[in-house]
Amino acid sequence: MLLPQFAVDDVIKTALAEDINYIDTTTDLMIPEESRSAAHFLAKAEGVLCGIDAALRVFTLLDPTFRAAVFKRDGDRVRPGDVIAEVEGSTRFLLKGERTALNLLQHLSGVATATDRCVQIVKGTRASIADTRKTLPGLRSLQKYAVTVGGGRNHRFNLSDGAMLKDNHIDAAGGITAAVKAIRTRLGHMVKLEVETRNLAEVKEALEAGADVIMLDNMDCPAMAEAVRLVDGRALLEASGGITDATLRAVAETGVDIISVGALTHSVRALDISMKIR
Amino acid sequence: MLLPQFAVDDVIKTALAEDINYIDTTTDLMIPEESRSAAHFLAKAEGVLCGIDAALRVFTLLDPTFRAAVFKRDGDRVRPGDVIAEVEGSTRFLLKGERTALNLLQHLSGVATATDRCVQIVKGTRASIADTRKTLPGLRSLQKYAVTVGGGRNHRFNLSDGAMLKDNHIDAAGGITAAVKAIRTRLGHMVKLEVETRNLAEVKEALEAGADVIMLDNMDCPAMAEAVRLVDGRALLEASGGITDATLRAVAETGVDIISVGALTHSVRALDISMKIR
Amino acid sequence: MLLPQFAVDDVIKTALAEDINYIDTTTDLMIPEESRSAAHFLAKAEGVLCGIDAALRVFTLLDPTFRAAVFKRDGDRVRPGDVIAEVEGSTRFLLKGERTALNLLQHLSGVATATDRCVQIVKGTRASIADTRKTLPGLRSLQKYAVTVGGGRNHRFNLSDGAMLKDNHIDAAGGITAAVKAIRTRLGHMVKLEVETRNLAEVKEALEAGADVIMLDNMDCPAMAEAVRLVDGRALLEASGGITDATLRAVAETGVDIISVGALTHSVRALDISMKIR
Amino acid sequence: MLLPQFAVDDVIKTALAEDINYIDTTTDLMIPEESRSAAHFLAKAEGVLCGIDAALRVFTLLDPTFRAAVFKRDGDRVRPGDVIAEVEGSTRFLLKGERTALNLLQHLSGVATATDRCVQIVKGTRASIADTRKTLPGLRSLQKYAVTVGGGRNHRFNLSDGAMLKDNHIDAAGGITAAVKAIRTRLGHMVKLEVETRNLAEVKEALEAGADVIMLDNMDCPAMAEAVRLVDGRALLEASGGITDATLRAVAETGVDIISVGALTHSVRALDISMKIR
Amino acid sequence: MLLPQFAVDDVIKTALAEDINYIDTTTDLMIPEESRSAAHFLAKAEGVLCGIDAALRVFTLLDPTFRAAVFKRDGDRVRPGDVIAEVEGSTRFLLKGERTALNLLQHLSGVATATDRCVQIVKGTRASIADTRKTLPGLRSLQKYAVTVGGGRNHRFNLSDGAMLKDNHIDAAGGITAAVKAIRTRLGHMVKLEVETRNLAEVKEALEAGADVIMLDNMDCPAMAEAVRLVDGRALLEASGGITDATLRAVAETGVDIISVGALTHSVRALDISMKIR
Amino acid sequence: MLLPQFAVDDVIKTALAEDINYIDTTTDLMIPEESRSAAHFLAKAEGVLCGIDAALRVFTLLDPTFRAAVFKRDGDRVRPGDVIAEVEGSTRFLLKGERTALNLLQHLSGVATATDRCVQIVKGTRASIADTRKTLPGLRSLQKYAVTVGGGRNHRFNLSDGAMLKDNHIDAAGGITAAVKAIRTRLGHMVKLEVETRNLAEVKEALEAGADVIMLDNMDCPAMAEAVRLVDGRALLEASGGITDATLRAVAETGVDIISVGALTHSVRALDISMKIR
Repeated sequence: MLLPQFAVDDVIKTALAEDINYIDTTTDLMIPEESRSAAHFLAKAEGVLCGIDAALRVFTLLDPTFRAAVFKRDGDRVRPGDVIAEVEGSTRFLLKGERTALNLLQHLSGVATATDRCVQIVKGTRASIADTRKTLPGLRSLQKYAVTVGGGRNHRFNLSDGAMLKDNHIDAAGGITAAVKAIRTRLGHMVKLEVETRNLAEVKEALEAGADVIMLDNMDCPAMAEAVRLVDGRALLEASGGITDATLRAVAETGVDIISVGALTHSVRALDISMKIR
Repeated sequence: MLLPQFAVDDVIKTALAEDINYIDTTTDLMIPEESRSAAHFLAKAEGVLCGIDAALRVFTLLDPTFRAAVFKRDGDRVRPGDVIAEVEGSTRFLLKGERTALNLLQHLSGVATATDRCVQIVKGTRASIADTRKTLPGLRSLQKYAVTVGGGRNHRFNLSDGAMLKDNHIDAAGGITAAVKAIRTRLGHMVKLEVETRNLAEVKEALEAGADVIMLDNMDCPAMAEAVRLVDGRALLEASGGITDATLRAVAETGVDIISVGALTHSVRALDISMKIR
Repeated sequence: MLLPQFAVDDVIKTALAEDINYIDTTTDLMIPEESRSAAHFLAKAEGVLCGIDAALRVFTLLDPTFRAAVFKRDGDRVRPGDVIAEVEGSTRFLLKGERTALNLLQHLSGVATATDRCVQIVKGTRASIADTRKTLPGLRSLQKYAVTVGGGRNHRFNLSDGAMLKDNHIDAAGGITAAVKAIRTRLGHMVKLEVETRNLAEVKEALEAGADVIMLDNMDCPAMAEAVRLVDGRALLEASGGITDATLRAVAETGVDIISVGALTHSVRALDISMKIR
Repeated sequence: MLLPQFAVDDVIKTALAEDINYIDTTTDLMIPEESRSAAHFLAKAEGVLCGIDAALRVFTLLDPTFRAAVFKRDGDRVRPGDVIAEVEGSTRFLLKGERTALNLLQHLSGVATATDRCVQIVKGTRASIADTRKTLPGLRSLQKYAVTVGGGRNHRFNLSDGAMLKDNHIDAAGGITAAVKAIRTRLGHMVKLEVETRNLAEVKEALEAGADVIMLDNMDCPAMAEAVRLVDGRALLEASGGITDATLRAVAETGVDIISVGALTHSVRALDISMKIR
Repeated sequence: MLLPQFAVDDVIKTALAEDINYIDTTTDLMIPEESRSAAHFLAKAEGVLCGIDAALRVFTLLDPTFRAAVFKRDGDRVRPGDVIAEVEGSTRFLLKGERTALNLLQHLSGVATATDRCVQIVKGTRASIADTRKTLPGLRSLQKYAVTVGGGRNHRFNLSDGAMLKDNHIDAAGGITAAVKAIRTRLGHMVKLEVETRNLAEVKEALEAGADVIMLDNMDCPAMAEAVRLVDGRALLEASGGITDATLRAVAETGVDIISVGALTHSVRALDISMKIR
Repeated sequence: MLLPQFAVDDVIKTALAEDINYIDTTTDLMIPEESRSAAHFLAKAEGVLCGIDAALRVFTLLDPTFRAAVFKRDGDRVRPGDVIAEVEGSTRFLLKGERTALNLLQHLSGVATATDRCVQIVKGTRASIADTRKTLPGLRSLQKYAVTVGGGRNHRFNLSDGAMLKDNHIDAAGGITAAVKAIRTRLGHMVKLEVETRNLAEVKEALEAGADVIMLDNMDCPAMAEAVRLVDGRALLEASGGITDATLRAVAETGVDIISVGALTHSVRALDISMKIR
């Protein structure tokens, strides 16, 4: 995984502490310490895999003797019945780590799979699928990583690393032009400036003021298509708000550059994956 | 909220650190430090509210002058247009905390709403809806709390506080009877023992061995109804596996005591709630 | 040890940070970096060993070249002069880790030894020895583990994982029967319910109300024996309060199932163990 | 308390997390949220109180409405029946914090009481009672504070802030004189140098080499008295090892300056204190 | 301060833990607990103040009764003898917090002062002064904040939030054009792309490839002036490397947009500020 | 390095988290995962190296396949062009760790180099160079270590491990004699007592009162020479305050034992070291 190991380890340790507390009262009483088992991870639904390294890391943190052979990598498409990895280790630790590993793997694969579904829908248009800041507490890095694994692109990570003029900012400055003017020379020179707009007049004003990116907030498709013609490549256009699977293709065909989808990270459906111990 | 404040604060601080990093580059440059605003939280979909105290705590941690009037509490049913709370504080901090507060509130309300939907479906039967250990990393306490807010009951929190004999444990002992016998007198006296079963013969064996709870794993409704008759109140029966909205009522009508639903916490759809700053 | 390694490591790192701060000013100035030594851990009193893995882990965290041969394991009885382990490593790190390792090992062996003494006293009766929540801050997992190593059984770990109706709860509900009725169907189905009683009338009421476990709080032996007859195996009986080494056997002979002893963890006498560097 | 509040808070939060996890399942279901109660802390044994501020802080961290009137302070002698403090607050939080508060208070009062007992025994001699590095993981600051509350003096806190030449260091240098010479000019100028000795010849050598403090390790009383005469105030003398309540007075009467007692912190007997909710 | 309070608090608590450990042995023994004092913070050198809120927060974390009147704010220019703030509180806590408060205040004011000196030198040119990632471990947020207080602009905060093609990246792609092409459509749409160049040919290639920002690495002034003419406002130009106080004005006069100066954060000279207790 | 590995690791992980956040957007998109490179660390200025183990540890934490050959160790003098270490590993991780490693290495080498410069200036006198508590938040252990690497000696680490009577303490007691008398018998027996003095009368009083160390605060050289004669080896003398490179030799020649220099840690100039990837 691209994420720094120690950061992933912190998430795993938190999850293990939640799930194990101090003992696995069933396993510690029933399974002999020296017992070893093999197991495999099996896809039970179709989707895009994400988080296999993190899932296997769970066991490595518990059991230095754990070994794995990995057949599917992050970004690979899996189908029901696909064997993702075969593993071997202490039976106790396989049982203790199973739930934590699957919780991570199923969630991240869920994010990647949802992203991939959107990416497939817009295929052939110029639109990219992007995430948002609508992530779950403590999981932003992992979720944003999963979006890229699913073929999406990351929006700004946080409030520091991208500027976005929303209505409150614009009102405080007295309009888009004034707002852009006020912020441009004081922003870090590596920070892009996006302006939220609700109609074509605002799009025009944002473009002329010099926005790098213009967000088309809850506009309908004809308006977005008109915005694309108006801007003509002089700024990036981001469609946002109220986009569903049903409308996604039509939005993409308006010619916008970016479609941001909050549901990728705020309403994740886990991908069904199981672990079978033999 | 029932959860200890400092534990909730840790989740909030982690989320704020993810979302703010060091500055809100837009807001800090555009909104004067002394500016104050009012705002309200507005339901945009129907559901059961959960997490309002945590959401408002986000702002208190950022802004000691923040004030709120709360109209809907955890467990209240909300409908589109309902005002959940009216708040007032530093404009900068309202903008900086907005996303973190909503991410928490929408997720927890999503869990409570999904739980409530299941609870409504089984109303009138003896079945309770329970969660599982299929939670998201770092969010188990909050998610389990949200399940209770939605009217569900919590399954064991972790591997320490409840014993569950699964196939691997049973196989290691040489059968259900042997397994229960081996573990019973060594378990803490406050720990309940659940046994996973796949058919009526196993249910019968588990009952006679003295299980407190018997899990009916992926059984069909007729088999479950038969198990209910067989056990006749001498142990609790938990239905688990492959239960959907479509089959939930029928499962409940078999007479089982508990129906556990992993999707309550592993596949959460955020409840749509917004915050409007005036 | 059964405890997750990373949890034990956190305790060790905290202890090492307390004991080393930034340097061992004596050792760093006096012992050459390349110096290596052998050492052994020696029992200097009789008792039950506990914590040897944690004690040796102290050195592994400091010194990747550290090696150990272990002759006594957790749960083994040791006598003065017994060699518990022979170790070899960097002299500097042996000296830096010595106090932290011994502090852990002596404390946990103290807990296990005290537990074992109680277990021996009640041998041949049906009574088990259990711990309580009277543990030292930050050490609950380790202390509860040590109790099991000494042959005891763990009471509930915390306020979440077992229900205990005490006088304040009972008074709030208007009596034992009302209290049990109020809590039973709302408790998680994996949570056992214990009721605190002070006399036989209360024992009877708790039994009829359906308590899983009945605590006999500060009762004398005849009353407890009477309670045993009354309950006749329909609930577990726990003796608690004011039990000393002198009275423990008599309490056990009343026929109670569980005797809980706070002193196992709140008043621990360290077991004398030393480390000798050659 | 002298200790920094945030450091004490960290210990308390750890202990609360251990004891509460996510809910108090009994209290949250049985006690109405708005219920308030008064309670008092009551001494049930004689001793020296320590940790009352920390114990009350437990409730403040849980409940901002908590109020206390304190009648006995750290260092005060308490007798059975003494009311230490009267408190008032949310009944739920009184019940949730009770065990954590008592665990802290009883342990620290146990340390202070044991120290005080030693201090009383040596009264009238020139000897002070000192602690050691034989403390419990994570509790060194609190335990060392409790020793001072009991009238003792603190030995070095850790390996950085005092130098102690033990046999391994002395052997490495080729003798006491060589060791002192090697370390003296390289030690920080604020660090005192203690030398461990086993007989009068070593005491003499340590004195002449310029030790600030000389430890008399496991010497008998006549030898210690002789060491006192020999040193005649030119260095501090510390008696250490194998000192019991029975021998403590005799050791003190040899004229040594310091008697260090590991049991003050490694074998603590909790002082019996209870909290009664009305 | 713009930084989130809890993040600043974490730095302060770490610093206080370093400086106090468990007691202030001098102050706790010499100053009565009830003693209160007034004190003032006094500038002893000329510069730009930064960190006054953080410095005063040190005392608030130690002493809830601490009060301050602040006369100079972050960004204000101070001269020797200027009173920055007058404070009042427990004498013990004023003494315990003094060093930690001053260490923070003097360091951050040192950063702001150095930045301001550069800003004054380039005044009247189009150049802004920017920081780099050459910050001290754990202090990046605070140092970057201090740069803005001194009038500088922040470069990218970390490796995630800005793209910078350096020689290794360019070589891996086979040239600037290929590298920009490879990265552009896969970068997040809110991430700017900077290309490092060493001569005019590379500047030209980077410009044509579509870099947002072009770094002129260690070029001399005539080359930079030529680059300015060549680029003519179509990308931002950043001068970097080997720039000293002596050459800074000349570099600025070449017409570059940004001059980044590592020494602002890696070689900080503390601003002399004292705290006097009366 | 003498510092405990886990303590250094905590600083490194904090720094890496600051610098990487979740991805290196440039490197992760441009450098193939399997690419490996060699690199070397090169001194670009003259000084005393410090922190090489910590710098290399950065890469080990990121990349288990990282290998290094080290040619210069902490305390070695380096000159421009000296190769400090040659390393080999994953190209991605070399690029991701470079800045964090250099930030640490340059800062600590800066501290060691500044210390060494002072040590060389006072060579041949009896004076040692010492640090102060004027360190940067979170970096005290590392900075104090670097001072010893540069040939300096460490002053007290914190307020717990050395006693220093300053004017506020002395005034509270009613004079130096009273203050020393009040604190001496209550201080831990391993804690040295230093007294701050401003003139010869105070020096005399401190000496007679029995101070271990006497600080000569902002005295001129003739006064310090007189103090040396007066004290005549019966206490250590520390010169402090207002000492510059220009006056340092003269101060040392007065015969004082210790000269403490705050700038060693509060105003550090990074030593120029680079890392070149091939």
